[in-house]
Amino acid sequence: MFYGIAVFPEKHVQDLANSWRRRYDPHYAAIPAHMTVRDQEDWTEQQLQTAVDYLEQATAALSPFTVRFNRVSSFFPVSHVLYLALEDTAAMQELRNAVCSGPLTVKAPKHVYTPHLTIGQKMSADELHDMYGNLRMQSIDAVSRIDRIHLLYQTDNGSWTAYQSFLLRG
Amino acid sequence: MFYGIAVFPEKHVQDLANSWRRRYDPHYAAIPAHMTVRDQEDWTEQQLQTAVDYLEQATAALSPFTVRFNRVSSFFPVSHVLYLALEDTAAMQELRNAVCSGPLTVKAPKHVYTPHLTIGQKMSADELHDMYGNLRMQSIDAVSRIDRIHLLYQTDNGSWTAYQSFLLRG
Repeated sequence: MFYGIAVFPEKHVQDLANSWRRRYDPHYAAIPAHMTVRDQEDWTEQQLQTAVDYLEQATAALSPFTVRFNRVSSFFPVSHVLYLALEDTAAMQELRNAVCSGPLTVKAPKHVYTPHLTIGQKMSADELHDMYGNLRMQSIDAVSRIDRIHLLYQTDNGSWTAYQSFLLRG
Repeated sequence: MFYGIAVFPEKHVQDLANSWRRRYDPHYAAIPAHMTVRDQEDWTEQQLQTAVDYLEQATAALSPFTVRFNRVSSFFPVSHVLYLALEDTAAMQELRNAVCSGPLTVKAPKHVYTPHLTIGQKMSADELHDMYGNLRMQSIDAVSRIDRIHLLYQTDNGSWTAYQSFLLRG
């Protein structure tokens, strides 16, 4: 079964992101607006239990923090993704490092971890550049407190269901 | 902000339900296949905190259990809903009673609580009867362990995001 770990920003940030996701993100209906902490991976029941135990322990030492989304950015040309970017990625990087450690170490990361909230993906290059040009001119300033992470699993239709939340208790 | 409490059955039950939800449930994209434990209600930040504290305490005394979906049933004519029904509703009733108590007591319930997993809703009467007739002839036997509940909130697009999970720890 596929499991992934994500952070959901506060509702007002989700609402903002959804105004673009609705149209430009084919995963709009599969999962609420989120920042991925750990990409999906196929786990056995045993690996799930190990992960849950590890996440309980790791989150006990992590403190809640605040993030500020201050602009739209893109992974083009590596991937045709538009996302809300963070003014300062340090706290999310730290969360990622703590979560993806021990039994949850990512063996062969496919790319450098960049915290982001996707608002568009699988767009044509033309559409991406159009949107990107538009959105770069909008002033974006959205703040969210991050005080928990969510372990999710994927059903056969590609959607994600919440399995367990872990509060940052440090 | 609107909060609700639900139980997600195991993936194989969701996959089964989604085969019908995809087509017959307009809420298919808003929330994974679920059984509602407490209907949505508009809560203040303060009410949320009270609810979280209460749920922590209530779930400490509740034990995990198993449910068996053994047929399709309907709320017609009260509402045009088709759902997977439980062979025995006692454990879900008990969960509901424990959760919707104290500060989470439902003041004026709109209907008698009937545990169900919706697979179709807002159907025309004709469509509902057609489907119901078909599905009554299929043999349904799906078992799921229930060992946690989920507190969810609704974003402006009508979708639900996981806020916190509570394990049944009794």
